[in-house]
Amino acid sequence: MKISIAQLNYHIGNFEGNFEKIKIAVSKAKQENADIVCFGELATCGYPPRDFLEFDDFIELSEKMIDRVTALSENIAIVLGAPTRNPVPEGKDLYNSVYFIADGEVKYVQHKALLPTYDIFDEYRYFEPASKFGIVEFKGKKIALTVCEDIWNIGNDNPLYTICPLDEMMPLKPDFVINVSASPFSYNHADNRMHILKKNVEKYQLPMFYINHIGAQTEVIFAGGSVVMSPDGLAYKEMDYFKEALQTFDLEEVMQGGKNDIQQYNKIEKIHDALVLGIKDYFGKLGFKKAILGLSGGIDSAVTAVLAQRALGKENVRVLLMPSQFSSDHSVNDARLLAENLGIHYDIIAIKDIYDAYANELAPIFKDLEFNVTEENIQARIRGMLNMALSNKFGNIVLNTSNKSEMAVGYGTLYGDLCGGISVIADVYKTEVFELAEYMNKDAEVIPRNTITKPPSAELRPNQKDSDSLPDYAILDEILYEYIENQKGPQDIIAMGHDEKLVKRILRLVNINEFKRYQTAPVLRVSSKAFGMGRRMPIVGKYLS
Amino acid sequence: MKISIAQLNYHIGNFEGNFEKIKIAVSKAKQENADIVCFGELATCGYPPRDFLEFDDFIELSEKMIDRVTALSENIAIVLGAPTRNPVPEGKDLYNSVYFIADGEVKYVQHKALLPTYDIFDEYRYFEPASKFGIVEFKGKKIALTVCEDIWNIGNDNPLYTICPLDEMMPLKPDFVINVSASPFSYNHADNRMHILKKNVEKYQLPMFYINHIGAQTEVIFAGGSVVMSPDGLAYKEMDYFKEALQTFDLEEVMQGGKNDIQQYNKIEKIHDALVLGIKDYFGKLGFKKAILGLSGGIDSAVTAVLAQRALGKENVRVLLMPSQFSSDHSVNDARLLAENLGIHYDIIAIKDIYDAYANELAPIFKDLEFNVTEENIQARIRGMLNMALSNKFGNIVLNTSNKSEMAVGYGTLYGDLCGGISVIADVYKTEVFELAEYMNKDAEVIPRNTITKPPSAELRPNQKDSDSLPDYAILDEILYEYIENQKGPQDIIAMGHDEKLVKRILRLVNINEFKRYQTAPVLRVSSKAFGMGRRMPIVGKYLS
Repeated sequence: MKISIAQLNYHIGNFEGNFEKIKIAVSKAKQENADIVCFGELATCGYPPRDFLEFDDFIELSEKMIDRVTALSENIAIVLGAPTRNPVPEGKDLYNSVYFIADGEVKYVQHKALLPTYDIFDEYRYFEPASKFGIVEFKGKKIALTVCEDIWNIGNDNPLYTICPLDEMMPLKPDFVINVSASPFSYNHADNRMHILKKNVEKYQLPMFYINHIGAQTEVIFAGGSVVMSPDGLAYKEMDYFKEALQTFDLEEVMQGGKNDIQQYNKIEKIHDALVLGIKDYFGKLGFKKAILGLSGGIDSAVTAVLAQRALGKENVRVLLMPSQFSSDHSVNDARLLAENLGIHYDIIAIKDIYDAYANELAPIFKDLEFNVTEENIQARIRGMLNMALSNKFGNIVLNTSNKSEMAVGYGTLYGDLCGGISVIADVYKTEVFELAEYMNKDAEVIPRNTITKPPSAELRPNQKDSDSLPDYAILDEILYEYIENQKGPQDIIAMGHDEKLVKRILRLVNINEFKRYQTAPVLRVSSKAFGMGRRMPIVGKYLS
Repeated sequence: MKISIAQLNYHIGNFEGNFEKIKIAVSKAKQENADIVCFGELATCGYPPRDFLEFDDFIELSEKMIDRVTALSENIAIVLGAPTRNPVPEGKDLYNSVYFIADGEVKYVQHKALLPTYDIFDEYRYFEPASKFGIVEFKGKKIALTVCEDIWNIGNDNPLYTICPLDEMMPLKPDFVINVSASPFSYNHADNRMHILKKNVEKYQLPMFYINHIGAQTEVIFAGGSVVMSPDGLAYKEMDYFKEALQTFDLEEVMQGGKNDIQQYNKIEKIHDALVLGIKDYFGKLGFKKAILGLSGGIDSAVTAVLAQRALGKENVRVLLMPSQFSSDHSVNDARLLAENLGIHYDIIAIKDIYDAYANELAPIFKDLEFNVTEENIQARIRGMLNMALSNKFGNIVLNTSNKSEMAVGYGTLYGDLCGGISVIADVYKTEVFELAEYMNKDAEVIPRNTITKPPSAELRPNQKDSDSLPDYAILDEILYEYIENQKGPQDIIAMGHDEKLVKRILRLVNINEFKRYQTAPVLRVSSKAFGMGRRMPIVGKYLS
């Protein structure tokens, strides 16, 4: 028996586009003589469709697409995920299901039992968990169909759910398992996934076909890396990362095993490629081509510009250099050199005259109050407004260049440098931004050396440096990682050897700046805990603030 | 037996403050010779604590507070909600529970079974549903303890859950029911609640004590209105709205029934009082006192200013009048008159010189491209920046004055008039804003007549009117209500008699402007479907866009 995995880039609510992709993949799989072709979770409507699922009209469009997919199923079986309606009034109105379609009809539908409702996931918001489990027979083989999380409740000490769907299916003696997934990327996700797949195969002693999405849906990035596991616990094949792919496997060969064909990728390389894909799909799926960002001469905007140029092409990225009286000599030179290295268009607008216009109008109200954060923010906001003006005039989406460390502690100006349609590196700590810059320069110096080596500065007052008000980024990032990714409280972090006052100050800064993050553009997610929909914090709260 | 209901304004994560309130209420209840005093759901930590629940440290603080509450329980029983830990590794790590505490010890803990996970609710994100049900005996009475949603699965045709916890408890023959709740306000919530309470009492024939929170937690407003139901299906007492209160009831009298003591309140009155409370608590709980907003002379900023003055006091509200060359003669006069009526400080800053400074700097790049939305947005953003400059200098939080109709269709400028820490009327449709204005003027003309009667205009280009690009607000709001509140698709709305082209255009505008709402301040929620955490939409999606 031959089984194809179609690892596709779906688009939420683009039923026509998703159908066309599926149609092409079905016909390719037929050419490769596949008996079955498998797609991802909620492949009709894309993942995560969020509250569109609450619109009856949206579900109807998905159902109509299932009819059209069914019409493609002559001489091939099609496995794909889609929402289905719960026929009884009790419980949620929908299931998250996997369809088995063959010979022009839906042969079997298995609902998902384990509904991830944590981090970026909201599945119990929409779906009733499955309470019945079966298998489907096709060409003499018994197949267990599962959806994503259904295979994730084993292999850890603190399981989130009280059942494992495959335990319920095993008495029916399946020959192999198909798992249709939409597993979001994070730089450590592939390792977790391989661990879980191994645990499943070890427990059930069955080959497993795990099909993932690729492509980004706003902040959530899917990396692909679909896996075929042999019963010996080895990965017969891990498919490409960050690329659409269709590949056909012979079940007998998979059964034999003995291969361990895993993607080789380091953390920074993965983050780099994920962010490039994230930008590309944000623009492509919104129907935009062109980006704009401010280049300060600093490392954050430099790294963002490189990512944008690699995602969109040099002809589609333009930058603004906006020096103030506090900008160092190097800033404009470093920024200009980067723009030249990247071959992207740049303009220079000095912000002094606009700043003076604000200062004049505000003088009667501010009188002789001292220069403070107000005037710093005015500079940052003028830059944000100039980026937005070009965005409006020429149709370029502004890229937010803030990193995760500064987003965490609120070291950024709302409506200023926090402007933008998408936050490109806001899930990348400052220490990782440096690693990204070095990785980008590995073959040739793209980012000027001086941009990497000079002390980070916002340049909003004379001789300002980040280190005036923040600890070393190495220490800051460690504390932030424990608080954000590991959800440690202050006592635990202090017990790790960090200074008590510093820890309390940093955690307080994170919490009191929730209001800024609330109003910041979606963050391309590359870690296991990104700001945005996966981290939901009260603004008005007193804890650690 | 005497039972007190303490309807309190909790503060998320403010364990010290919440404990003090509970302590005072316990001692008051003792003075009133109560046998039992009841508090709300998650009364230790406030509701909704969101992802703070994922911090072990946060749960520990709640547990320590339970110990302190337990020490208060001599001569009185205390019923209150708090998170508890799930002792087994399988399933979520927490329960959402109600404690029964008496004689210095925790006598009984009942976990919540029905976990709301829709609209603003995320409870299955954190909590395992209860699988065991019991009752507690105290002074010869058997008491069924339930938490909020536990009583909400009856009385509707499409129940969200498959069980009713009280069905499980009835074989144990309880004498009455206590329900500790945190039920968010919407202008139609009290009617729904009364319907559900009646259905429960009719079904189980038991008196019921329903205890709600009052107070706002960022966007979510709790109205109070705690209810004591008699077994005859009548409301023995509905307690105050929008006020903290403690009231003690005699169980025998409640059993007799015959009273129906319900709050009289119309929709606009409720919205008005809810918004005043929402502003007051947003500032108070963040530790701020002072607000600033731009007054345009239009109705939205006028209504927002009145609400702010009523919430914070006239000495704590200041406004900026920021006319441009396109402002009509009346604008500044109407705004000034309102400020005088309200007794609030105002400053006038003409934006022309700042606008010219931008235009000068952009001229070499824009060359002879026509005046368009770019230049309109620059004006709106200058105003936003001036508000923010005063905010930074004087510590006033900026109020966003956008209404729900314009938020829906994107008729507002990101980083311009959409600036602000809290969106005061962004859950109030334009047609309702007019009703609010009339209500505010019922005793004396606070809002100048001209502000109410003149045609709405953004005044960003010569002779601009909202009606140039939008349909009549009466029609627009009807279409928006069907799409947003009722989740109707285009076909259903057209079938109601609306123009097909218009419906498709409006729905498309709602969807393509999701990126603006994503970056807008939290919205005080007064309807059953507000923008923000209760409406989660993809930005990159193709449905109806």
